[in-house]
Amino acid sequence: VAISGFALDYIFHPRSVAVVGASTSERGDQFIDALREMPFRGEIYAVNPKSETIMGLPCYPTLRDISGPVDHVMTSVPATVLPQIVEDCGAKGVKVIHFFTSGLKETGEAQREELEAALVKRARQLGIRIIGPNCLGLYVPAVGLAWISGLPKEPGSVGLISQSGANAAEFIAVSAPFGLRFSKVISYGNAADLDESDFLEYCAEDPETEIILAYIEGVKDGRRFRRVLTEAAATKPVVILKGGLTEAGGRATQSHTASLAGSAEVFGALCHQAGAVQVRSMAELQDMGVALQFIRSLPGPNAGVIGGGGGRSVLAADELTLAGLRVPPLPGEVQEQLQGFTPVAGTSVCNPVDTSVIWYGGEQAGELLARTIGAVASAPNVDFVLLEQGLQWGPRKSRDRPDFIPKWMERALETAIERCADLKKPLVVALTPLYTVDAYEATLRFQETCYRQNIAVFPDVRHAATVLSKLLSYTVRRHQLPESV
Amino acid sequence: VAISGFALDYIFHPRSVAVVGASTSERGDQFIDALREMPFRGEIYAVNPKSETIMGLPCYPTLRDISGPVDHVMTSVPATVLPQIVEDCGAKGVKVIHFFTSGLKETGEAQREELEAALVKRARQLGIRIIGPNCLGLYVPAVGLAWISGLPKEPGSVGLISQSGANAAEFIAVSAPFGLRFSKVISYGNAADLDESDFLEYCAEDPETEIILAYIEGVKDGRRFRRVLTEAAATKPVVILKGGLTEAGGRATQSHTASLAGSAEVFGALCHQAGAVQVRSMAELQDMGVALQFIRSLPGPNAGVIGGGGGRSVLAADELTLAGLRVPPLPGEVQEQLQGFTPVAGTSVCNPVDTSVIWYGGEQAGELLARTIGAVASAPNVDFVLLEQGLQWGPRKSRDRPDFIPKWMERALETAIERCADLKKPLVVALTPLYTVDAYEATLRFQETCYRQNIAVFPDVRHAATVLSKLLSYTVRRHQLPESV
Repeated sequence: VAISGFALDYIFHPRSVAVVGASTSERGDQFIDALREMPFRGEIYAVNPKSETIMGLPCYPTLRDISGPVDHVMTSVPATVLPQIVEDCGAKGVKVIHFFTSGLKETGEAQREELEAALVKRARQLGIRIIGPNCLGLYVPAVGLAWISGLPKEPGSVGLISQSGANAAEFIAVSAPFGLRFSKVISYGNAADLDESDFLEYCAEDPETEIILAYIEGVKDGRRFRRVLTEAAATKPVVILKGGLTEAGGRATQSHTASLAGSAEVFGALCHQAGAVQVRSMAELQDMGVALQFIRSLPGPNAGVIGGGGGRSVLAADELTLAGLRVPPLPGEVQEQLQGFTPVAGTSVCNPVDTSVIWYGGEQAGELLARTIGAVASAPNVDFVLLEQGLQWGPRKSRDRPDFIPKWMERALETAIERCADLKKPLVVALTPLYTVDAYEATLRFQETCYRQNIAVFPDVRHAATVLSKLLSYTVRRHQLPESV
Repeated sequence: VAISGFALDYIFHPRSVAVVGASTSERGDQFIDALREMPFRGEIYAVNPKSETIMGLPCYPTLRDISGPVDHVMTSVPATVLPQIVEDCGAKGVKVIHFFTSGLKETGEAQREELEAALVKRARQLGIRIIGPNCLGLYVPAVGLAWISGLPKEPGSVGLISQSGANAAEFIAVSAPFGLRFSKVISYGNAADLDESDFLEYCAEDPETEIILAYIEGVKDGRRFRRVLTEAAATKPVVILKGGLTEAGGRATQSHTASLAGSAEVFGALCHQAGAVQVRSMAELQDMGVALQFIRSLPGPNAGVIGGGGGRSVLAADELTLAGLRVPPLPGEVQEQLQGFTPVAGTSVCNPVDTSVIWYGGEQAGELLARTIGAVASAPNVDFVLLEQGLQWGPRKSRDRPDFIPKWMERALETAIERCADLKKPLVVALTPLYTVDAYEATLRFQETCYRQNIAVFPDVRHAATVLSKLLSYTVRRHQLPESV
């Protein structure tokens, strides 16, 4: 593995990992399980004095008994054992310890707070960096680092910095069907040593990271964070979800990661000045990641909307407009072109285009939908096309029949998407996942078709409208364009 | 079937239904298919001169050839044939025609607009009422009326009035896994004859309807609507989603149902004065339906929040507070009680209660979660308990093993919900559906467990926070309580 020069890069490329206090349960050790599944590209060592082997690996009584070099240690042993682990790591020349262990400063108990401070102090003396405590650590698919099994093996270009481990784990799983893949995910918990500024600075310089997403509960050093964030946001898009915007939320950040949440207003102003995008939920963090990955920039506010269903069209127009975008009537010649092949009853060619061709059977359906998309995209007053639908309209009981409408729709949408690979304007999809397992499976399949073709998919029009409006603001600011049209 | 006295009730209790222009395709006729599946409690007749039988039913050349009485006619024949159908209905003594047929006034073409007006005029002369045109008509599970197969057969107490057929159909399907069931659903399209005020007035008087939900694009007679809405909202909760709040949305209502959308401000003020609740999306319409059905009223703004995961807890506290609710610290004695059985590491007993007992295996997990819920509910400064989780934390590959964490969680949640049947304060669940088919199936199962026990389930904390805040405002206004605590 090529190691680039910048300061923290060695943390993400360990030659070997030792799991200290590896579980001897029948279920196996979660970390070893994850590392072997990826698989991790270096040596994996199990350490536990109570066993000779764990999951088929030789098990060492202590770190010091391992003969080869150990760069990275993961451990979930109880807090009181940590000082001994740090000493062992020092003796062994370990570079980084990831403390999954919780029950330290975040408990609010003076003794545990002192223990955490002492661990950091001693580690610094020994030249060891600490990730955590109270976190899940690193997920780096390109080198096979992971903390739990079942995560995607495919690397990507998103760097995620998360003060919450569960939020990070859930984000990886939840955003995968929308096509997000990661260069580095860092769950860093209490940030006793390495903190948000360290990881932000690293991601800004990391050539494998193109988009930076972050969930942050507290900032250790405001002045440094401001500088690092400003530099990072000048280089790459940075999107931040701040936990603890309210008094109750701030109380929770203290008991979660011992973080002082600080003022929501100050944090908001800081993000704005630095050029970072602030979002309000994990779902918005995902949407913004998808938008930046697959749309990159939005040329203007004017949507050409295509869907099936009059009520859907009305609500889509409302949502987009209320989010600050526009849904202008299509020019007469485009409407005429659409009228040439759109049935007259129960449709509209104005914008939104409400068309029943989505539900047609056979090959023709996809072709007509592709022609619809092409015609809408050709309108000079359209900056991007939004295709919005749910894969479950029509009779639901005849699922094994060839004329089952959702199957037609799936085929029509797939064909249309394939035909639109060379579209000159961004094509965006909002695909409401409806509430049957069948429709849900079809939705997952179609989402993959979209992101494999670099098309952004959002869970519904509300999500799309919110994030596209944010993307437009970001685009305008980034390229210093006029607010357009 | 008992027919009560109020004016339009006969429309919802036809003795017989004739499908005019029933489809002779191999696939069968959509309406007949739906009516037989429910099944409809009266006679079903097929009318089409091109066939002798349809789906095993004798098929009559015209309505006049049917010997028994025909109360209700459904038809999707082309617009130009409709005048003849109206004449036949007059001759046969039909009471109501549901015109699925579209391509009338909503096309904006003068000739089609005139045709619609002429149909209404002639029908009134003949004493026939019209539902539509350009709509899906009636779904009344208690008598077996339906427009498409696959809809729930179980009746309920929600009346839905929708100017969009697709929105109505989707709403029934999408809200079913959250426990909404219907007394009457009315898709009424162009409202050429019977309109929103007629159906609202009916639902207000209908003893089978306890909650009224509506999707409305335009109001035919503002003065009457104001009166009817005020009277309805004085009797039952009325929740309205207005389509066409924006200029682009209003353009879409015109091409969808020939509706003049009117001013968003005027409509908003009208709802507020009448005591109706206005919502911003179909999802919010569902959430408010669920809240009114299963929570009914909220005693105050103070949430006791229980979840697993520190980041989730932080964000839940933020969401609830930002929506205008409160997450107060639990009293010392309740925190002590929780500390008695909550592990110290990685948890919090303050509020939100972040507890790992959700992930414990065995019977104990549910018991401990139930004790947690009971303790939180016992706090005098808690008005309701919000349990929030997603059924997919933890290792995801060992799904066939007895120690698979999502299975534990499912069992723990189920046990806890069962133990909490007698809780003195509202218990509300926010269950994020994560993105695997397994987790989704588990979510559907658990949602059913909840609503079968009259517990409200929402798709995530954001949804719950938004709707609970609205429910509180509604409760306060309805009961003229002080804004509390």
